[in-house]
Amino acid sequence: MNKEIDFYYDFISPYSYIAHERIKKLKNIKFNYKPILVGGLHNLGGITAPALIKPKKKFLINDCKMVADKYEINFKFNNKFPINSLRLMRGVISINKDKEMDYINKFFDAYWGSNTDLSDENEINKILKSLQINENIFFKKINNQKIKDKLKDLTQEAFDKDIFGAPTFVINKKIFWGQDRIEYVIDEYKKN
Amino acid sequence: MNKEIDFYYDFISPYSYIAHERIKKLKNIKFNYKPILVGGLHNLGGITAPALIKPKKKFLINDCKMVADKYEINFKFNNKFPINSLRLMRGVISINKDKEMDYINKFFDAYWGSNTDLSDENEINKILKSLQINENIFFKKINNQKIKDKLKDLTQEAFDKDIFGAPTFVINKKIFWGQDRIEYVIDEYKKN
Repeated sequence: MNKEIDFYYDFISPYSYIAHERIKKLKNIKFNYKPILVGGLHNLGGITAPALIKPKKKFLINDCKMVADKYEINFKFNNKFPINSLRLMRGVISINKDKEMDYINKFFDAYWGSNTDLSDENEINKILKSLQINENIFFKKINNQKIKDKLKDLTQEAFDKDIFGAPTFVINKKIFWGQDRIEYVIDEYKKN
Repeated sequence: MNKEIDFYYDFISPYSYIAHERIKKLKNIKFNYKPILVGGLHNLGGITAPALIKPKKKFLINDCKMVADKYEINFKFNNKFPINSLRLMRGVISINKDKEMDYINKFFDAYWGSNTDLSDENEINKILKSLQINENIFFKKINNQKIKDKLKDLTQEAFDKDIFGAPTFVINKKIFWGQDRIEYVIDEYKKN
């Protein structure tokens, strides 16, 4: 099978983390990780983030924990939620491809597994160090216009495909929104 | 087990229909059907309905069909979506209890199973007739202030419980939003 599954995610999205943890276990299926800025996507679509709607945020905190428990995923709702994930998402694009998955794992785990305050540059630096990424080069790169534009383009591309939130999967030009749809994504993948 | 599961629904919500069709099959579990006006609930919570957000509506149409197919539920996205469900929801409250479940089944099925235009009073009357409900009495009742207030109160009660959409299940004071959460609701029900 040569089908491809695109996986649009943002570190700020707890269900993106849950989706990431779930698809990591699917060793035989390749997912193309597509970083987007979900806040930017919401702005493009005129959508208010759940984090900004009081009852939705309250629900989110309980629901994520419940879903994570079901799939035996280490999860702790971050005390500093939401934060601006812009630097971290630009970071995915700026680093070398061979470090990308480690970077994704470490930042997702820091934010949703270990309650790390990723608005704190010192915390970011600690993780960069563990990845053997030079922090000065990192921060210089993420301020490069090309990197900034790339994330903007990826977010716009998602919007143009009628994606409106994260996580979203795309396969056979079909859109699947939410970690709840992983089984459907796999069904679509297995179709002839 | 004497646990109760409240099921908040609105005929206008396609996932409420799917949830209704799914829980109908769970013969050993009792669900308390709680009619609400989801538009009113959205207003209280400052939430924009998915139907009013272009990419979300597009997604909704495909997603509902896909989920309905998975559960072998007869489903057709209604050409006249959304409509104002106020009269129909007041209707649930106005009719005799012994006809309630038939009323719910017929109106859900008409709107989401048979693509009936329920903004058309003639179509409503046809269904009322099949239920042996006198249309004149029906329309008089749903304009009664007590009936109007009752639906408003049920919607406010939902809002006060931090419910923000339909379908929503409540058991052990826990909130489960969406037909995707039915398995979790059952797990909660089976807990000691």
